[in-house]
Amino acid sequence: MLELYYGAGTCSFVIHAGLEIIRSLTGTQYTSHRVKVHQGEQRTPQYLAVNPQGQVPVLVADGQPLTQVVAICDYLDRRFPEAQMLPTDPWERAQAMSQLAFMNNTAHPTFAHVFMSHHFGEGEAVQAELKRFNRLRFREHLERIQQWVPAGDPDGWFGGHPVFHDVYALTLLRWGGLAGIDPDSLPRLWAHSRRVAASAPVAATLVDERLELNVYRQPG
Amino acid sequence: MLELYYGAGTCSFVIHAGLEIIRSLTGTQYTSHRVKVHQGEQRTPQYLAVNPQGQVPVLVADGQPLTQVVAICDYLDRRFPEAQMLPTDPWERAQAMSQLAFMNNTAHPTFAHVFMSHHFGEGEAVQAELKRFNRLRFREHLERIQQWVPAGDPDGWFGGHPVFHDVYALTLLRWGGLAGIDPDSLPRLWAHSRRVAASAPVAATLVDERLELNVYRQPG
Repeated sequence: MLELYYGAGTCSFVIHAGLEIIRSLTGTQYTSHRVKVHQGEQRTPQYLAVNPQGQVPVLVADGQPLTQVVAICDYLDRRFPEAQMLPTDPWERAQAMSQLAFMNNTAHPTFAHVFMSHHFGEGEAVQAELKRFNRLRFREHLERIQQWVPAGDPDGWFGGHPVFHDVYALTLLRWGGLAGIDPDSLPRLWAHSRRVAASAPVAATLVDERLELNVYRQPG
Repeated sequence: MLELYYGAGTCSFVIHAGLEIIRSLTGTQYTSHRVKVHQGEQRTPQYLAVNPQGQVPVLVADGQPLTQVVAICDYLDRRFPEAQMLPTDPWERAQAMSQLAFMNNTAHPTFAHVFMSHHFGEGEAVQAELKRFNRLRFREHLERIQQWVPAGDPDGWFGGHPVFHDVYALTLLRWGGLAGIDPDSLPRLWAHSRRVAASAPVAATLVDERLELNVYRQPG
């Protein structure tokens, strides 16, 4: 019995789309609960009973909560090896975990400085500088991730179907739009993300979360 | 054949001490290379050939580099299962990975705002605010980690010998001293870290990196 608590458009998209991919491949059902993070629902007593940290995603497996995207990806892959969400070769798997860790501990927090600058410092001038400085760094991180996009236009990061890496990269590129980064300026990553978004499970997740893929708006 | 590139006192301590623990339990030898990060040695062409990101740690396994603390911990545990560095039960392991991810993507970057504030924004006033604000947040993170310290004073996080979690928590508490947080104000975490530091492999790593455990200095 699997349940997911997610916030639309947040990093929980990685797990939400991942569960849809696993369902499409294995038939495993799960229940999803939308947490209205823009309305602060993650701070209600009901939600804090699920996750005292007030964060999404939470995967509840057989009644027990698990937090942290990287830990959930690793757990789901090992619970559903037939879905092949991560490589089985130990060294390839280690490299895949290294990429997930970078997306999670470097790219994601850098974007948070742009989108949630009040989580890092107080004052208008401070927050404006955090946005300016980290928007530039976030672009560098997206460029690094673009270098990892597999050659030969496969649907998925490891040559098969889309996996966690594909939807994590898609999520970060989508956030780039909110940070004023035109996805057209990262053409390989954008083309790959559009292919991934067109796959049935990821397309269904986008619809379920009511998300546009491209949220970039030209300044002015 | 394992080689580690580390910077004294950085997060690479988690892997350095982890390799010492694995050596003490299994006899597996490794070579270590100190990177003088305070002198910018991680930016030299020689080091960038090892890791283009210019970061420590890098584990070179059979000639191939692997980055990211969480990925290296997972890899070493699976390569040396007899050392029992992470739980084998899938759910306990997932929870252990979740804790490592929190230390890695939340506690570590929060400290970086205090110690390396120029990595997040420019200007003296901005950097002073980053230090002030994130010192408070870092303390909250250490308090959360303190809640995870195992009851009953075992040497290690999972009841046996010290493992990655113990040396990660020790590293973060040690950094707390540099951020002006007195370890005596986190007594359970401090007592546990002193026990961990007294174990032979961790004590040897502290000597090898020439580190004091307590770097807190009373203000004024």
